[in-house]
Amino acid sequence: MTNLPDIRVGSGFDVHAYDDDAPLYLAGLLWPGEPGLSGHSDGDAVCHAIVDALLGAAGLGDIGGLVGVDEPDTEGAASTGFVRLALAKLAAEGFRPVNVSVQVIGNRPKFSPRRDEAQRVMSELVGAPVSLSATTTDRLGFTGRGEGIAAIATALIAR
Amino acid sequence: MTNLPDIRVGSGFDVHAYDDDAPLYLAGLLWPGEPGLSGHSDGDAVCHAIVDALLGAAGLGDIGGLVGVDEPDTEGAASTGFVRLALAKLAAEGFRPVNVSVQVIGNRPKFSPRRDEAQRVMSELVGAPVSLSATTTDRLGFTGRGEGIAAIATALIAR
Amino acid sequence: MTNLPDIRVGSGFDVHAYDDDAPLYLAGLLWPGEPGLSGHSDGDAVCHAIVDALLGAAGLGDIGGLVGVDEPDTEGAASTGFVRLALAKLAAEGFRPVNVSVQVIGNRPKFSPRRDEAQRVMSELVGAPVSLSATTTDRLGFTGRGEGIAAIATALIAR
Repeated sequence: MTNLPDIRVGSGFDVHAYDDDAPLYLAGLLWPGEPGLSGHSDGDAVCHAIVDALLGAAGLGDIGGLVGVDEPDTEGAASTGFVRLALAKLAAEGFRPVNVSVQVIGNRPKFSPRRDEAQRVMSELVGAPVSLSATTTDRLGFTGRGEGIAAIATALIAR
Repeated sequence: MTNLPDIRVGSGFDVHAYDDDAPLYLAGLLWPGEPGLSGHSDGDAVCHAIVDALLGAAGLGDIGGLVGVDEPDTEGAASTGFVRLALAKLAAEGFRPVNVSVQVIGNRPKFSPRRDEAQRVMSELVGAPVSLSATTTDRLGFTGRGEGIAAIATALIAR
Repeated sequence: MTNLPDIRVGSGFDVHAYDDDAPLYLAGLLWPGEPGLSGHSDGDAVCHAIVDALLGAAGLGDIGGLVGVDEPDTEGAASTGFVRLALAKLAAEGFRPVNVSVQVIGNRPKFSPRRDEAQRVMSELVGAPVSLSATTTDRLGFTGRGEGIAAIATALIAR
């Protein structure tokens, strides 16, 4: 066998219900005029899935351990900060992200017009290529009924 | 650290509702006597998930940007052609697929009798090992109620 | 291109409905006082997702081919045995697991208090780092309604 570098894969999944009274933060961007997402922090399912994929690859727990959902100071917090916290935990173990692939599943927002912008913002945040794609579920399930958004992320890390 | 080759991971997810009046195309095969899948193109959720996993790994967008769903000439199109288009986009950036793993989630068709055949067809199409597995959701959710099929794909690519 | 080691990625997904009359086996642990999972074998969705991710990475089929669901002797079987069977199939082809990342999706059990214990048990079983995380779906879908549990796994293997 060729000498194998120390690489690991991780997966992350997150769901948030729509909250019409909240602003939408998704993939680190503010989406004016779109229904927001419920939940502590800003509900940014893309950031949360990335956090879980990175921590999962490194075996360092999940977003629930990173930030207590009952801590008042995480209410409305920018989820980009959680990504930074996860990256710091990886760096402390000598890991760095290689790339992350994320898919947004839901009817809203229409993602493609801002995909390039979102990819730039998330790639800069993560310090490695982050790709974003979007799909719908053909009117099926909670995403198809327009009740919420799901995000699936897969991350590759190395040290 | 060992010198790391340029490898990337990507994930793709796709859902299509059943359409009893359509023929079923799945994993590049025609499944006579089985309920088909709705949607533009032929609704082949396995091919679509593979496309999104490959494009996601390379950071080259998603199937929506590859083929306009409003373009009349993609109606009923063989989704194997979309896989070829995605591979050409990867090749133009110097990427090649290492392997792809896909899971079909749904009650129909019964996949195992033709899994080997489907794996051969998809592996030949992709030019790298494509593995296919199938599962059900214990009667839960839209797949469990027999409303549609989901496919999850993870791809590894290199250059 | 750097000489690429023979590595492969695989994904696995599994769902089981709750069965209040069964004991809960999840991630190789018995969870006293928690609602169990239905299904042949012990319904351990984490083990099943790991099996499918490992077999998917190696292109060696899925859990349905590993164990016949109609075989009476798999009823109530410990799913840790299926993981061992999958690892033996991989070893016969020269493959070994590099790492596995699994996410449990559901309202019950509360996973974090026993995550470290579960990670130890599963990592020892697999012979490579297995990371476990858990999430809920914000009351949406069958997991959000408390009807069942889903598990998503991604595996990296090498030879």
